[in-house]
Amino acid sequence: MEKPGFADFSCSIARTLDVIGEWWTLLVLRDLFAGMERFDDIQQDLGIATNMLAARLKRLLDAGLVEREVAPDDGRARVYRLTARGRDLYPVLLSLMAWGDKWLAQPGEQPVLVVHQGCGKVTAAVPACSVCGEPLDLGDLKFQAGPGGRAGPGTARVGRYLGHED
Amino acid sequence: MEKPGFADFSCSIARTLDVIGEWWTLLVLRDLFAGMERFDDIQQDLGIATNMLAARLKRLLDAGLVEREVAPDDGRARVYRLTARGRDLYPVLLSLMAWGDKWLAQPGEQPVLVVHQGCGKVTAAVPACSVCGEPLDLGDLKFQAGPGGRAGPGTARVGRYLGHED
Repeated sequence: MEKPGFADFSCSIARTLDVIGEWWTLLVLRDLFAGMERFDDIQQDLGIATNMLAARLKRLLDAGLVEREVAPDDGRARVYRLTARGRDLYPVLLSLMAWGDKWLAQPGEQPVLVVHQGCGKVTAAVPACSVCGEPLDLGDLKFQAGPGGRAGPGTARVGRYLGHED
Repeated sequence: MEKPGFADFSCSIARTLDVIGEWWTLLVLRDLFAGMERFDDIQQDLGIATNMLAARLKRLLDAGLVEREVAPDDGRARVYRLTARGRDLYPVLLSLMAWGDKWLAQPGEQPVLVVHQGCGKVTAAVPACSVCGEPLDLGDLKFQAGPGGRAGPGTARVGRYLGHED
């Protein structure tokens, strides 16, 4: 399917999906978070076609989420690593994982356990307020049109629902 | 592009993407979170083809994230609403939004503001520990192969990186 023009939407969800929303990309990022650095390793882990993986990594390199370096132990080889911008996506992966563990896995059958070393317990990420630190329940949130909001493709009407008059 | 078989991967990220990872789906969910209920409203907001929107909503209905009801004011019309399972995806949307606001918007140009009514401030979601409530920094996390983990398509090698011997 042709990729929609999400980058031009006045929406931070759409813009983020423009970078990471293609099939496989979030699993490539998952493997980089797990510590894989080699193209062949990721390719074999996922069972993805090599041309597809190359295209996904190129997009991540172009968007500044991943960097490619000479392998420390082999000057002809290359390794892929997350940049600060890429590592900052870990809340997205944690929230996808938490939902899948809760709604799509059998009880007690999580494929991966996340241990919070601060308290030593197996955890799941829950959203908290960046200002006061309290948990963010959906009912405690109000969404408002922001200074960068505008009515346009991808956001033609939503502003009215957020208290914004076009 | 043909959809990969993410549903069969032993990975809660992949399984979640199997349900919500197609282009447009997360923006359809965004509009439902904003309070849109009508097919035509969502279609016009996004500028999406009607057959595409119908397919996306059908997938969400089939997966139990959305329910369709008779419109209260018009017995011939239908409204779409998030189920508890669908509403529980709000941390995914908040984390996508927070990353896009930080890395892809001009400073002070967020398209949408999230207000935490508990403290009254404009917030961004940050991940916290479901057990102790403290913030989850990436460096505080350890990932381990879980009881539902197995080596297979999509996870052929990652277990070794998580301390799991195949």
